[in-house]
Amino acid sequence: MSDARIERLRAAAEAAGLDAVVSTSPASIFYLTGFDPLAMERLFAVALPVDGAGALVVPRLDEEAAGAAPTGLDVVAYDAASDGFPELGRVLGGARSLGVEEDHLPYARVLRLQEDGHALRPAGELLVGLRARKDAAELDAVRRACALVTDVMERMFAQLRPGDVEQAVNARVAYELAQAGATESHPLVLFGENAANPHGTPGERRLAAGDVICADISARIGGYWGDLTRCGTVGPPSDWARDTWAVVRDAQAAAIAACRAGTPARDVDAAQRRIVEAAGGLGKCLHGAGHAMGAEIHEPPYLVPRTAAPLEPGNVLTVEPGLYATGVGGIRLEDDVAVTDGEPELLSSLPLELREVPA
Amino acid sequence: MSDARIERLRAAAEAAGLDAVVSTSPASIFYLTGFDPLAMERLFAVALPVDGAGALVVPRLDEEAAGAAPTGLDVVAYDAASDGFPELGRVLGGARSLGVEEDHLPYARVLRLQEDGHALRPAGELLVGLRARKDAAELDAVRRACALVTDVMERMFAQLRPGDVEQAVNARVAYELAQAGATESHPLVLFGENAANPHGTPGERRLAAGDVICADISARIGGYWGDLTRCGTVGPPSDWARDTWAVVRDAQAAAIAACRAGTPARDVDAAQRRIVEAAGGLGKCLHGAGHAMGAEIHEPPYLVPRTAAPLEPGNVLTVEPGLYATGVGGIRLEDDVAVTDGEPELLSSLPLELREVPA
Repeated sequence: MSDARIERLRAAAEAAGLDAVVSTSPASIFYLTGFDPLAMERLFAVALPVDGAGALVVPRLDEEAAGAAPTGLDVVAYDAASDGFPELGRVLGGARSLGVEEDHLPYARVLRLQEDGHALRPAGELLVGLRARKDAAELDAVRRACALVTDVMERMFAQLRPGDVEQAVNARVAYELAQAGATESHPLVLFGENAANPHGTPGERRLAAGDVICADISARIGGYWGDLTRCGTVGPPSDWARDTWAVVRDAQAAAIAACRAGTPARDVDAAQRRIVEAAGGLGKCLHGAGHAMGAEIHEPPYLVPRTAAPLEPGNVLTVEPGLYATGVGGIRLEDDVAVTDGEPELLSSLPLELREVPA
Repeated sequence: MSDARIERLRAAAEAAGLDAVVSTSPASIFYLTGFDPLAMERLFAVALPVDGAGALVVPRLDEEAAGAAPTGLDVVAYDAASDGFPELGRVLGGARSLGVEEDHLPYARVLRLQEDGHALRPAGELLVGLRARKDAAELDAVRRACALVTDVMERMFAQLRPGDVEQAVNARVAYELAQAGATESHPLVLFGENAANPHGTPGERRLAAGDVICADISARIGGYWGDLTRCGTVGPPSDWARDTWAVVRDAQAAAIAACRAGTPARDVDAAQRRIVEAAGGLGKCLHGAGHAMGAEIHEPPYLVPRTAAPLEPGNVLTVEPGLYATGVGGIRLEDDVAVTDGEPELLSSLPLELREVPA
């Protein structure tokens, strides 16, 4: 699988008139080689001249793990005395026009490659273009991640009780995800007025009667993410919670229906935005409709007003409209959707309902 | 505190002949403002003209959290229809010479800022220079993080038994850290031959008699990291485990003793390297002596052969030599050390001994 991807990237680089392409983002390296780097300050790269063999360049301490990856590329390891660029340069040979992942490659490395005589060209689109069209195995991997999140979400709502501490609930969710094999997770379960901030930080807040609960749970397993959000109330919903939930549900349904091949990504956002903004008395619309997802939790295309590119079959998108009322709470509903040649396909089967936790 | 840091950065930018500086790395933004961004594809920035007020630029959905941060800077929020650069540009005004964090700013944003008429200059050193000299409150924060890791490490070794599954042990450690308030953690507890890979991935391996255990546990709490590694064996240590542990202990002691103001960072590496490499029959030396640590788990200066810069009082360094034998195991010992005007100071009090788990 990986090697077919390498050949597609090589063909795309050649068609773009590049001498070589260097991929440096961990998710792209994972996509191309099956090797999942723990990248911090050290250089990891897939270096691919259009007329050479290419290689996976890694620090010496990752040589063994990289060598075990399902890739036909040679592994070139560099020692702690090197920053990896001399070794990278030898793989690139005399490549002049060099495509790079411009959304990932930091300026210091841009300058380093330019000093080495390469003429850099933004080529992230080549990798985004490949990665954005998920194949059947990748869709299955996202379904498995969604199934794990669904399982943990259901258990969390079943166990939640007044008095539970936000931070402890999030810690427990992360633990259950990790026990089941998740390699990364981002639980974000917020109570009451804390849920009015879509990027809130779980703290010492205890769950209380009348609270809304906004539970956004994501996990990566087998290399791919699932990301789902459901809401509930402690005791019967207030008028605000019931009305807001119904608006967000309608907005999500409209946005999911818009997830069709050929539709500009921003039209998915517009479909939810016109519904949530019309209900402005209930809360604020603070973000776009969602984002693509795969080996990274957030990938292009982003479902925001400035993304004109059309959706394609194989895109996997989170669709997650929300409404947020300062001091009151927030409601968001999120599912993961595959764009197909026909109808949009839900990758999860988590029931869509406003949960009620016993007061 | 934050505002004094802003003024120090402004003074450093002015002294460097810059019109303005833009900080975009989450750890630097946290250092400068107390606001800890969850940065993915959206732009977050501290924009600071040398002769203007400056601002913290954030997406609209982070406006409330940014507004609550202990900073005197104005918060400028941008909507989903913007990529944040028009708003950033207004804060920067007519700044021509613009310092950026070259180890963080991606090429696409470099090009965007250049299109907007700014002449970019790498200025990461200005921020690294401030952040690398930790103040008393930061040293205390690292001590607290080390105390948390110490506590969880001790409990883990006390509970570890043959038959325990690697992945489950790591999940449990992460859970205990999160329950105690850690906002991030990277447990890496590896058994037997898996410990021969310093970046191994915990899996289904069960602990067995005769195994070596290499437990590297890091956690972030209150914004700062602690990062410690200890080793053990199941039953009495083999000759290899005992001999290797003694070599690594000596290497660590030599490297810690070298952590003095004025010493080139690479000399700390050399101090451990000459000891572990002299014991090459026991295993391989796969990495440098360590790295600085603070709001990020890995920060400059890196204790590797190519870092000539001298250490300074206030540097917080991990010192973590190791020896790795393929098919057998790995031994690493890691403590966190503050460079002072005099003797190096250990920030943790975790006993240094080869643990023995009942077989």
